[in-house]
Formats: sequence, structure tokens, C-alpha cells
Amino acid sequence: MTSQGQLSERPPQFDAPFRERLRELLKWRRDVRRFKRDALPEGTVERLIEIACLSPSVGLSEPWRFVIVQDKTKRAAIRASFEICNKDALAQQTPDRAGLYARLKLAGLDDAPCQLSVFADPSTLQGARLGRLTMPETINYSVAMAIHTLWLAARAEGLGMGWVSIIDPAGMTESLDVPTEWVFIGHLCIGYPEADADRPALEREGWEKRRAPEARIIYR
Amino acid sequence: MTSQGQLSERPPQFDAPFRERLRELLKWRRDVRRFKRDALPEGTVERLIEIACLSPSVGLSEPWRFVIVQDKTKRAAIRASFEICNKDALAQQTPDRAGLYARLKLAGLDDAPCQLSVFADPSTLQGARLGRLTMPETINYSVAMAIHTLWLAARAEGLGMGWVSIIDPAGMTESLDVPTEWVFIGHLCIGYPEADADRPALEREGWEKRRAPEARIIYR
Repeated sequence: MTSQGQLSERPPQFDAPFRERLRELLKWRRDVRRFKRDALPEGTVERLIEIACLSPSVGLSEPWRFVIVQDKTKRAAIRASFEICNKDALAQQTPDRAGLYARLKLAGLDDAPCQLSVFADPSTLQGARLGRLTMPETINYSVAMAIHTLWLAARAEGLGMGWVSIIDPAGMTESLDVPTEWVFIGHLCIGYPEADADRPALEREGWEKRRAPEARIIYR
Repeated sequence: MTSQGQLSERPPQFDAPFRERLRELLKWRRDVRRFKRDALPEGTVERLIEIACLSPSVGLSEPWRFVIVQDKTKRAAIRASFEICNKDALAQQTPDRAGLYARLKLAGLDDAPCQLSVFADPSTLQGARLGRLTMPETINYSVAMAIHTLWLAARAEGLGMGWVSIIDPAGMTESLDVPTEWVFIGHLCIGYPEADADRPALEREGWEKRRAPEARIIYR
């Protein structure tokens, strides 16, 4: 065994400078909507997925299923679904908010070089359903956590990610021709961001502002 | 403005050594079940929650609600709910797996000094329901991601966390006397772990093994 091999089996210690950098990463992670059109180096998304697979999953079920969407026709179908759903969403907003909403340019679907659809497979036998009896939804939560890991790994490489949720989930299963039992969790746009920011776009644009964390804590 | 203040507004660059440390953090994060009984320093969980609030949320809705459970009677009620659900879960397993399952000691409920229940508030008006029309479940996913952030922040401080999902969600809302519209996402045990490991307990104990990430990727 090499000394590197031994080292990797010793529990790492994370120091204050690392924690500060981790905080910076969390602070500068953004839901990116405006991308440069530059392609990603070969193998980038596969590397990000590999890191995402280090995420926790209920009963070690690893229910995440990643669909790398390259086909132009399939991308067009996803874009069309977004457009229909976005129109409905606009209609639900008050006129002043609707104008703002339209300007927010909610999808990076046109520009992001990489599109990744992520599903959960609740039918998986992996993990023998451990931990899922009372809360089967933990399968979906596991996938959401894997997406979050991928988001952080992407940002650490200088890449931006945007999560599109204004979309018809059943349509995604059909458009992408995946098993019907899979549950659509999110469609991700990944690429080089046009700009970096330490505040959410929705806050910068005056849509909403973040609240103090202590307002979200209660003691029992 | 101090030079430090200016620095913090410049986008940080994350280098290869940081990415390697981040990977180590992901690799050594564990679902911890065995804790030392030592108390956490005052303010620890509040600090972790503050970091968790840097997580993404649909439409900037920040739907996470953190309940720090200190009351002994309430902790006993949660433990009782776990015991009932765990018994049901055991009955669903084959005899050989049931024995293994029992040995896995699935809850750190007796030993962890800190217990934190996390809920989602789908009734929040924050974010004006942006992004939630077609997929209201993104509210719950946002909370799952905040839990994951808290998990990583805890591990970076040398703390372990275990997520208890073998529990009756409706009972948690009642036991903890929180608004009935809140959705229970997970009950977390936090404390100093008895040991560190770079492999999941379920894998070490022979329950399940992780699969190759490339087996989870399809191209469309």
C-alpha cells in the first residue's frame, strides 16, 4: 500500500481556513440562469456526477438516476414544456410581479451547454427498503441532496448550475423515455456563468429577500 | 470599507487543493448512529443552522423550519415513535436481515446530545410561490438540501449527524406542537461521533454496497 493510500484511510481533520472556504462556497453558490455558450471539457458532467454519488441516501439505496440530455429534439421538447408551464406561472402572478418574473429569464435552457435531468427510482431494491417504510419520500430527498452536492462541486470548479422546476414532471419521463416508475426531481442547466454573485438573483432583482436564520428556529 | 470587506465581494476562486478537501469532506461524511454523550459547546447548533440557511430554496422561499428538541418528555415521545416504527420495519425484513438490522442500532436517539427536527412550511408566502406551481414538492427538496448543508458543516467541525426516518411524520408534528401545515422532513441527531469512517455503516456491516456511478448515467 502506498503512503498516499494509508493517508486516505486516516480520518481527515478540517481546519478553520477550510471551514471558511466551505462557507464561501455555500455563499457564492447560485441558481444560475445566464450562461456563456462555451462547451464544457469532455467528461466534466460525468466527474460531477461521480462526486454527487458520495451523497447520503436512505438505506444506501442510491436512488439517483442521471440523464444527460444531448439530443436536440429532446431538448426542444423540454424547452416547450418549460414555455407552457412558465406561461401558466406568469398568469398566477400579479401584473407587477409578472413583469419582473418575465425579466428574470428563468431558464438557462437556451444557452447552457450541458443539460442534466435527474430522477429518483423508488422501485430500486438496493437498500432493501431500509428506513423507507414510514417515509418513502426519503428516496426523493436523497436525490435532492445528490443534486445539491453536484451544485457545490460544480461551483468549486467555477461552473454554474440552474435548477429548472417550472416544468411538467410526467412530460419529462415521457420525453426522455425513461422507466415510468422513475420520479422526476429536477432538470439542471450547467455551464460557465456570465457572472458570479454572492446574493441570489431573486434578491438582487427585488423579488424576495432572505430572512434571518434565527427567525427559523424554535425550541421545544 | 475595510480591505477584508472588499475581498469578500470579489468572487472567490476555488483551487484544486480545496476541491480535494471538499471531496474528502463528502467522502468522510457519515450517517452517524453511535455518539459520545459529551455536550456540544453553547451555540453550536444555531451556528450550523445559520450555515444551512445559505442553501438553495425554490423561489427563495426558505421554507426550512428548525425545531431544537430539548424537553425530556418530547424526546421520550420521539423515541417511542421510533421504537414502534422500528419494530414494524424489522417485521418487514427476512430473518437474517432482521438480526443485522437490529444490530445496526439505527438511532442515536439515546446518546446524541443534540436533537433537531426539521420541517418544511409549504404555506409560506415568501417567494410568492415562484417555481412551485408545477412541482410543489420542491419546497420539501429545498429543506432536504438545507439538511445536507448542515450535515457537511457539522462534519467540517468534527461533529457527526444521523438522520432518523424510521418515525411517524404526523406524530412528530403533534409531539413537537408545531403548525399542522408544516411537513416533517427529518429528525437529526448531532454530536461527537464515536469513530470516523470513510465507508457507510451499512456497507461496513454487509447490509448493502455502493454501486459504480457510471451505472447511474444514461444518455438521451
